[in-house]
Parts: sequence; structure tokens; C-alpha cells
Amino acid sequence: MGTAHSRALLALQHLDVPLRPELVSISGRNREELERANERFGFAEAVTDWREQVADERIELFDNTGPNAVHAEPTLAAARAGKHLVCEKPLGLTADESYELWQEAASAGVRHLCGFNYRFVPAVRFARELLEAGELGEVVHFRGRYLQSWGWDADPERWRFDPAQAGTGALGDLGSHLIDLGRYLVGEISSVSALVRTFVPGREVDDQFVATVEFENGAAGTLEASRLARGRLNSNVFEVNGSKGSLVFDLERVNELQLADGPGFRRVLVTQPDHPYLRYWWPPGHTIGWGDTFVHELGHLLEAIAGEHDVAPHGATFEDGYRCAEVVDAILRAATSGRREEVSYRT
Amino acid sequence: MGTAHSRALLALQHLDVPLRPELVSISGRNREELERANERFGFAEAVTDWREQVADERIELFDNTGPNAVHAEPTLAAARAGKHLVCEKPLGLTADESYELWQEAASAGVRHLCGFNYRFVPAVRFARELLEAGELGEVVHFRGRYLQSWGWDADPERWRFDPAQAGTGALGDLGSHLIDLGRYLVGEISSVSALVRTFVPGREVDDQFVATVEFENGAAGTLEASRLARGRLNSNVFEVNGSKGSLVFDLERVNELQLADGPGFRRVLVTQPDHPYLRYWWPPGHTIGWGDTFVHELGHLLEAIAGEHDVAPHGATFEDGYRCAEVVDAILRAATSGRREEVSYRT
Amino acid sequence: MGTAHSRALLALQHLDVPLRPELVSISGRNREELERANERFGFAEAVTDWREQVADERIELFDNTGPNAVHAEPTLAAARAGKHLVCEKPLGLTADESYELWQEAASAGVRHLCGFNYRFVPAVRFARELLEAGELGEVVHFRGRYLQSWGWDADPERWRFDPAQAGTGALGDLGSHLIDLGRYLVGEISSVSALVRTFVPGREVDDQFVATVEFENGAAGTLEASRLARGRLNSNVFEVNGSKGSLVFDLERVNELQLADGPGFRRVLVTQPDHPYLRYWWPPGHTIGWGDTFVHELGHLLEAIAGEHDVAPHGATFEDGYRCAEVVDAILRAATSGRREEVSYRT
Amino acid sequence: MGTAHSRALLALQHLDVPLRPELVSISGRNREELERANERFGFAEAVTDWREQVADERIELFDNTGPNAVHAEPTLAAARAGKHLVCEKPLGLTADESYELWQEAASAGVRHLCGFNYRFVPAVRFARELLEAGELGEVVHFRGRYLQSWGWDADPERWRFDPAQAGTGALGDLGSHLIDLGRYLVGEISSVSALVRTFVPGREVDDQFVATVEFENGAAGTLEASRLARGRLNSNVFEVNGSKGSLVFDLERVNELQLADGPGFRRVLVTQPDHPYLRYWWPPGHTIGWGDTFVHELGHLLEAIAGEHDVAPHGATFEDGYRCAEVVDAILRAATSGRREEVSYRT
Repeated sequence: MGTAHSRALLALQHLDVPLRPELVSISGRNREELERANERFGFAEAVTDWREQVADERIELFDNTGPNAVHAEPTLAAARAGKHLVCEKPLGLTADESYELWQEAASAGVRHLCGFNYRFVPAVRFARELLEAGELGEVVHFRGRYLQSWGWDADPERWRFDPAQAGTGALGDLGSHLIDLGRYLVGEISSVSALVRTFVPGREVDDQFVATVEFENGAAGTLEASRLARGRLNSNVFEVNGSKGSLVFDLERVNELQLADGPGFRRVLVTQPDHPYLRYWWPPGHTIGWGDTFVHELGHLLEAIAGEHDVAPHGATFEDGYRCAEVVDAILRAATSGRREEVSYRT
Repeated sequence: MGTAHSRALLALQHLDVPLRPELVSISGRNREELERANERFGFAEAVTDWREQVADERIELFDNTGPNAVHAEPTLAAARAGKHLVCEKPLGLTADESYELWQEAASAGVRHLCGFNYRFVPAVRFARELLEAGELGEVVHFRGRYLQSWGWDADPERWRFDPAQAGTGALGDLGSHLIDLGRYLVGEISSVSALVRTFVPGREVDDQFVATVEFENGAAGTLEASRLARGRLNSNVFEVNGSKGSLVFDLERVNELQLADGPGFRRVLVTQPDHPYLRYWWPPGHTIGWGDTFVHELGHLLEAIAGEHDVAPHGATFEDGYRCAEVVDAILRAATSGRREEVSYRT
Repeated sequence: MGTAHSRALLALQHLDVPLRPELVSISGRNREELERANERFGFAEAVTDWREQVADERIELFDNTGPNAVHAEPTLAAARAGKHLVCEKPLGLTADESYELWQEAASAGVRHLCGFNYRFVPAVRFARELLEAGELGEVVHFRGRYLQSWGWDADPERWRFDPAQAGTGALGDLGSHLIDLGRYLVGEISSVSALVRTFVPGREVDDQFVATVEFENGAAGTLEASRLARGRLNSNVFEVNGSKGSLVFDLERVNELQLADGPGFRRVLVTQPDHPYLRYWWPPGHTIGWGDTFVHELGHLLEAIAGEHDVAPHGATFEDGYRCAEVVDAILRAATSGRREEVSYRT
Repeated sequence: MGTAHSRALLALQHLDVPLRPELVSISGRNREELERANERFGFAEAVTDWREQVADERIELFDNTGPNAVHAEPTLAAARAGKHLVCEKPLGLTADESYELWQEAASAGVRHLCGFNYRFVPAVRFARELLEAGELGEVVHFRGRYLQSWGWDADPERWRFDPAQAGTGALGDLGSHLIDLGRYLVGEISSVSALVRTFVPGREVDDQFVATVEFENGAAGTLEASRLARGRLNSNVFEVNGSKGSLVFDLERVNELQLADGPGFRRVLVTQPDHPYLRYWWPPGHTIGWGDTFVHELGHLLEAIAGEHDVAPHGATFEDGYRCAEVVDAILRAATSGRREEVSYRT
């Protein structure tokens, strides 16, 4: 994630954004790895203690791409120091921690963005624009599923399997993206039922979950994430059905949107100059990749810092990060209680 | 459905089955429609009262393709008369009615088949054979979704919207197929959570449901059916993830099975002479259609009647019809209670 | 082919056609095989000499599904006897033989149909109707390719590898379908360049050919057929590009037409009751298979015999069979001469 | 193209390559546009006369991304000045001009690369490696087609429609990519037949061509390119059939390779760290885009300059650019002569 953000910032130095990023400082606990990383990216400074960065007045934007367990403390400190904020998803390890992050960022009056980068896939924002314009009518259904397969054979020492560092497994890692996409495209989630499963012996976080969700606007749907789906590498697929049309997206075919606005689904290659975020790039039909979503995301934040627009609704704020965390917590509660759990949001 | 079964029986008169069907009698309430139908199919006799058929000793196989509300009474009577039985799905309007049908058929000692014809898609039986042979390892996940779109604009007078005749809507009509496929491919379902929704004003049956399911073997999954999915005509799609591989089927591409038994999904055209049921048909690569599944289904039953094998496991018996009905009932209970509902099966 | 036609005729006994076929007589050289076949299909009579059929006044329609080398003689005799005619493709072994067949059938004043059954795929006729209605504008390009893979490992004794019986290999067997589809959809072919290849040692017919084609209306395109395309079972795919839109068809997905009449290709499931030939079949979304194309084809001929319409333009007549043979011959000439060869048609 | 190369060079400043590019100088005829471009990319200097660059000793790599008509003169001068060379495709306006470029670069002893960037799509190089390792056996067929649709509605003033600036139309612009891919994957082309067409009134370059090709190793195939294929944005698709397997690539799904190495095509997501060029990027399943191919291409050249390997065979040299031009010229000759034209290559 650090690599993805650093490259995006470097690319933004040469794109049409109102503020061009300077790479002031990179931090990391291991000095050797840090130097190696910075040899590549060329930050002006490399430090082993993020507190130095928080204290550094030259730094205006604090971008936290560390493991989940180190999201809160540095980000809170940076907020208090008045820096604009990026924090990778999931925002906090729990809804409470996420709430604190949001509140602190809001009090500080800074711009804050939670790293749900799939909002910045051109096809996803295009889907949102179609929905917002009523092209699909009233939404009645949302299905999101995010499938990977590396969980079967993975090194058990990865931090993603350590509950202390990761919080949850597939749920927070993959499921949080689906929750955010559902919220971005359809609306607020009001209740969930769920099964959360660990299949691989010795593993302490979940490998897979399934859930039904109700949205406040009456739509119903399902969410699923798995690290145990053989044949799937990064299969984040969602479908939205509305009274006038449907759409389907598949992250493995990141440049396409399947759109049913008449008989049958049309395959729209979302690569026209007037499609979202494509102004940065190429002639029609020339594809973008996963890494480019971070360019869009951080470019969007730079525009927000420059006052061109708010981070919301097209970027996920810390409030979105918090609300997603409430849904994650409700899924965990529902899996334990066997009941449909209401999701309640603090304000 | 009557058309599909009649044509399949006619085709079976010219295929390699141990018993060749004779078309003895067709029944229907409306004399004029009945005559018109029979002009086409050439049953020896057309009667307006099924009781005549039950009493007719020449009839050895009683095939009920009527609306759901008229499944029970004639089928029970035919069972008591010692006739072999076919009854379209869903078997009864409730689990209790379905149970009675199963018990009566079992007591009568006749062959009984519930019309879950998708078991007889070559790709589906091929999937079952792969799973049974352990090619996909231990199953951890099943997703089934059956989407159509005609519900938005349909004539409100259709019998499928009348609870008295249809029981449920998308749940019994489409969802029952998914339940049966899940049971056929993965195993018995032990609990469900669900949301069942009616969106179209004035409609008295459900338009859509979503559910999470637990299987007795520990796998988890989701089921969804909808008549309100714009762009979908007959989109019955399922995915099974196992510890060694995955498979995906889509009824709209009825001749294909997507199989991940190595890196990436392979598109297998299930049209080889040694694929299930293909011995009836054509050289490799020559496709079959929806109607042909009924030829396979009724051919399978004729073989069972001739003693070549049992109806189970590849055909759905009335016991399967009953067990499916228990899951349908549990989904309805779960939707109301907001709780995960255990499915318990009578024996 | 005999099986496909026989089953289609049996099915047509129970469909809405103005004339219902009676199965009067089947012929074949091998008495034992013939009896076995007829046990299945139930023709009233089975004879080892087709001359008996030609002399049989009860027979009104003579359907020749034999190997290519026995197309001409029996069909010519049947024409002279005033019988309506079906002959499988390719019509004759050469353009000259095909011309004679056409002339004889025309003189006899009978209905004649050459078995280009892919015209009777609903999606193909739908494509033709779209083109005819100008939905795609002026056509500028046609690409047809028909790929199979069985040629690598096939029994060298198959009649299809014997030039005396088959004439050509992939060219006549598969390529003739493409030529007919090109003619049906785009128009008359005026010139060709080509490479015709045999790769498998010892084989005496072609395994593969490639050609460029000019159409009389100015469109240009390519044709290709192969029996050596690993991974392809029955991959007959064509694309038409016009000034207003494009379409793509793939026989392995026989129920679909990909249609670009706006941005991106739409996947149209050609299974609506008002789609061509679907009136025979099922509700929307319920697929047909390869075998059903023969029902459409022979049903169309029965309607023509009953005077409801001509065989042309939606059925291929013997004239179409002849014109296709001229293109085949021109491809062979071009492969030898290395020149673009004009195709000239006798009238 | 200038944008694509500049961004790639900027990205390579932060990737693991043995030489990190410095952006010394950018040139362009229009001072205002040039300044605007350089505000974005940050070259140290911006000049309106490329001769200044040729004379500039600090410049070691001369990268020509201008219109086709200005490929030769500056590139020849830079070669003579001993600079390493990149020149966009097609190399020269004719085979003769291309030959001169190659000879001059070879004499100068510099590294030279012709911008056939699709060799640097990971899936394409992966295909080459499979072929080279014999995984597909002996190749018998190659089909390449490159379809776009912008030609129907394009501004007639674009330089691409001016024969003086562009040479040819779809043939040189799109077809040259196919020729290069065919040569890279299958081998040298020995003869061609072709039709070259202009459909749009008033246009002076070709809109579309079709060709059959023979390869020196005996394989046969077709090439097609069009700017008039409605529904196609950037559809560069090729298929290779070998005695042991087949593969298919589609540029619009740039991260995928369809591979038939057993029954049916497998969809391989070419996004594993050990796939070609993926070492630069992300975890499995995280896609790259069109722009990234230039990073791979120029990174490959930097490695070659550093002596790690030659430009060939994985990069296209000026010799490849020349050989491609001979095929282009042969296609033009064949279209005029109506004959199969041998392609002869000077050495």
C-alpha cells in the first residue's frame, strides 16, 4: 500500500491537479527497509518514528498506509497536529476506534479520506453517476462479493492473520470494500444477518463471511468475501438491480461496466475521455490499471484540499470509514447472535 | 411445463431407453384448450377430470405439470392408485403438504420424481460427478442466484402472483431450484437467515429473496432469487468453492461449465459424448437446449422404472421435494423472525 | 445428419406447421445398420436402395443426408421424379455438379433446400433481419471463422478424409457454412484470395484454409476454417461491421447475439417469443440447442411446400448451394494460382 | 505518444532499473504547446528544434514520438550523433526509409528500439514464452485483428488522414502492430494477399485492410485492421493455434490470456509476480493498464543500454521495424496486383 500511494503521489507531480505533492518524509520501523524504500521513492527524509512526522510543520498531508493496528494512534496525532489525513481501510480496528478517528479529524477541521480506492475506479464512479441520475430507477438489490484464493496456501506468519494487527480477516480486508461500495452506490445499510467462518486450521481470523443486508431505502442484498475461492485472484464483483436497469462490475476487468439499460447487458469500456478520471489518461479504449485508482483518489483529495470540492461524496471520508466499521461490527454480532442485527450509527 | 414434458416423452419414443413411453391420456379443465393441446401432442385420450386418469389402469406413470395448488390432490390419488409419479416443483404448497406427498409415494412403493430439471443439465450432473470424485476437495462455499426480470411488467392476473395457487413467488418458483441444486451439489442445508421482499405494489407474493445458508458439512453460502433483475432473463448461476478447486455454472450458457482446477477458470463445453446425457445427442461441440433437460429427466425416470437404477441420487425424489420445502419454509420463518432458523427434516 | 433430420421430422409432427411429416421410408446401404436406425425412428419402410424411394409415389419429400459423394445421383433422380428436395451441404462435389443439381430441381418445379442449417439459428436470422432493416447501416466488413480441433487425433479412415467421398476437407465441411452465412448476411461474393493447407501427414484433404473475400456491394472480409484449432470444438463465429453498428455470433453460444447498436456490445439472448423460430418453443430465456435448428429448417421447408412462402431468402435453395460451390472452387483456384480469383456464377 | 513515453520515463525514475532516466530535453515545433507540455513533465529544457537535441552531448537516448513523417530525419541524425534510439511505429514511411533507419542505427552501434509496445504487455510476452518453450507445439495458424471505430466520425483534418504525414491509414497505424505481433509470436512472414479499402468519402488513407499471410515455418493466417468497426474501441485480438494448444489475447482485457492447454480455454490473469514485467507492480490479481506497457518497454531498453541483455528478441529493434515495413509494403502491392506477394527482406 505504501508503494501504491507513493507512486500515485509521484505521478500526481505531473498531472493536472491544483496542488502538486512534494514527498517530504517517509517513516517505517525498520531502518534498513526504510532506506531501501526511500532509495526508490525519493522522499526528502526517512524517519523511524512517525512522531517526527507529526511534529514536522512542513508536512501538510499525513498518509497512513500501515497495518490496521497502527492506523489509529499516528492518525489521531496527525489530526491533532492539523494535518490533512489519508488512512487506509479499514479505518480503525473497531467501530469505536473508527469513530474516534472521525471525530478527531472533524474537530481538527482537516480534510480526511479513508482509502476505499475502488470508489475511484472510473467504472465505479460512472455507476454511481448513472444511479444518481436515476438511469437505473429505484434500486431493489445489491450483491457484492470479493473473492481471493491465497488463503489456502498462505504463510501463517502474515500480519493479516494476526487478530491483534488485522482485527478481522476477509471481513475487514475485503468485506469492508463491499460495504463501502454498497453504501456509495445504494445507500446506508440498516441491518445485517451473517455467517463468519474460519476453515483453515490454526487460523485466528475469518477466512470467509456471507451476509444479507437491508438498506435504509428498502433494497436488500448479499455480501460475501473469501480468501478461499480457488480460481479467484481479485474478484471484486457487484451487481445493482433497479426498477429501470441493472449494472455489473468486476474488478478483474477493471475497465468495463456491464450495463442493462435495454434488452441484454452492454459491455461499456469505461475509457472515454469524458468518463470519470479518464481526463488524466489516454485516448478511448486505452485501459487503466489498479495502481491508477490511487492516482485518482489522491488527486481527488488534493483537489479537496485546494477547495475545489469536498472529499464526499465521491471520496470516502473518515465518517464513511466509521460507518463501514459499524457494519463490520454488526456482521460480527449477527454471526454470533444468529439474529438480524440493526446497524446504528453515532453522529 | 405440460408442453415441455409432452415433447420430452415424444422424443423418448425414439431414443435408447429401456421403456418407450406411450401417451395414453392428457387432462385439463378447459375442454377447448385441452383439445387444442392434444391435437398437437396426440395423446390417445383427453379428459377434463384427472380422476379418470387415476382410475385408468392403462396409465402407469402420472405426470403432474399443473400449477402448484393442484400438485397435491391428484398426485396423492395417483400414488394411492399405484402409479409412478412425476410432479413439478415445488412439490407441495408447504413442507407439510410435501411431506404427505412423499410419504404416500413411499408407501405406495412407486417411483417418484420431483421436477427439478436442472439436475439434468449435463454440466450440472458433470459438476456433481466432479464434486463426488473429490476433484474440488472439501466444499466451503456455495452461491446460487436465480434472476429474471419479467416481474416488473407482468400481467397481475397470472396464477404465479396468486398466493392461493402459487404459494410463494420468486422463492418457490426460482429459489426452490437453487435449494435443490445446493442440496444436490453440496449437501443438506441446516440453517438459514433471510430477507423476503415484495416491491411491486399490489403484489401478494414475494418478488425477491436473499438468504444465507449453512450446510451440514460446514460450508456456508448465499441464495438469491428475483423476478426484478432487469437485463436477466433466466439467469440461474451458481458457484462452488472447494479446497482444491471451484466451478461456476450459468443456465443462460447451458452447455458450459467454468472449472478452476488449476490457475484460472477453464470454459468446458459439456458436449462430449462421454459427458452426462450426451450419449443421446450429437458430436462434440453441438449444443443442447433447455427443453432437452426434460428428455434427460424423464429418460432417467424410465430407466428407474425399468429397474436400471434408483431415481436418487441424480434425480430428485419426492423426499428431495419435501426437503426443499422445509428450506423454503425456514426461509419464510427466518424472514419473519429475523433469526437464523434451523431446518429440521422429518423422516 | 440422418439422426438430426429424423428427429426434427418427428418433432415437427407435434408442432404448428401446415403439413405434418409422415416418415415413409429410410434407406441405407448396410441392412443391419439400417434396421437399427429404423428401430429408433420408426419409418414405415427401410430399403437398401434409394432407387426404390425415388420410385415410391407416396414419398413427396426426398431428404438426402448421406456423404458428399452420394448427394448428386439420388437427388437428381428424385428431382426428376418430381419430389421436393433436401440435400445436405455441400450440395455437390464441385460447382459443376452443384449447378446440375440446381438446374434439375428448378426444371422439376419442386421445392429444394440445401442444408445450411445455421441460417435457422434464431440469432442468425435475427441478424439478417437487423441487416435487412438497415439497423447496421452499410456493411463494410465480414469475418467468418469456423474452428474445430478433432482433426489432430482423428481416425484416418473417416470418410471426411477421403477426397473421393468428401471432395475437400475443412473447406467444404466448415468453410461452406461460412460462405453461405456471408452470402445470407452481406451479399454475393465477387472474388477471393486464399491459402489452403494440409498439415497432418498422410492426409489427402485440407485441414485449414484462410481467405480474403470481396463482396459485390464493396464490403471486404476474411474466411477461415480449421480442424486443427486446439480448444475449439464447434466455434463458428462471425462478425459484421456496418456504418451504423456491428454484430457478432458464436455458435458455441447459440442463443446469443452480440449487438453494437450504441456504445459497446450488448449481449442479446435471442430467446423471446417474437424472435425468429422461437414461437415453437419456450418462455423468454429458455435456450434452444443445435438440434433444434433442423426443426426450424425443415419446418420452413414444409411451410414452403404448403405455399406459405418461398424457400428463399431465409432458406438456402439449391441455387444457394451452387453459388456456395462456386466460391469453394474459386478458393481452391486462388490457393493454387496465388491470385485473387473472380467468382462467376452461371444463371 | 509523447505523454505515454514521458510518464513512463518518470515512473522509471522510481523503479528497479539499472539506469534511471533523467529528462534532459523535450522538443516541439509550437513553442506554446511545448511549454505547456513541459510544465507538466519537467524536462530540464524545452527546444523548438530537434537539431539542438541531436547536438546536445548530455542526451544519451533520443526518443522520437512524433508523427510518422518526422520519424526519419531526426532519428537518422541522432543515430549519427551516437545516441541510443527509440522511434515510434511505423518506423519509416516506407520499407526503404525504414531500412535506412535500421542501417544507420546498426552502423552507429547504438541500442535501437521501435515502439511496438504490445510486445510489452505481460500476457503477450507470456504467450511468447509459452510458444518458445513448445507448450503449444508447432504453430499452424495465426489470426490478428485490430479494430477501432473512430474512423466513421473523425475530424478529417487529423494528421492520421494525411498520406504525407501518416503514409497509410489503418494499415500502418494498427496493422503494423499485428504484423509485429505475428513476427514476434510465430515467425517471419513470407507472403501476403490483401484487400485495402477506403470507405469514407474524401479520405486519402485506407480505413480497413484484410490479408492472408504465410509464415516461413509453414503456418498460415489472416490479418485485419479497421477504423470502421462500430462497437470496437481498441480491439487488438490475436489467436495462435498450435499442434498442442492455442492461445487468445484481447487488448481490451489486457491482463488476461486465454489458454487452451487442455480441454477448453482457461482464462489466465497474467498478474502474478513471476509473470513478465509484473515484478514492477502489485500482488496477484491487481491489474496493469495500457500506459504501463511503456514503462516495461523503456525499462527494457534501459536494461539493454546497461548491458543486461540485448533489445531483441523481446523488444522490437529497428530491424524489426524495417521488416514490418516490408510486410506493409507487400500488403499494398498485393492489394494492387491482386496477387500473393512474396516478402523479401534486405540484410
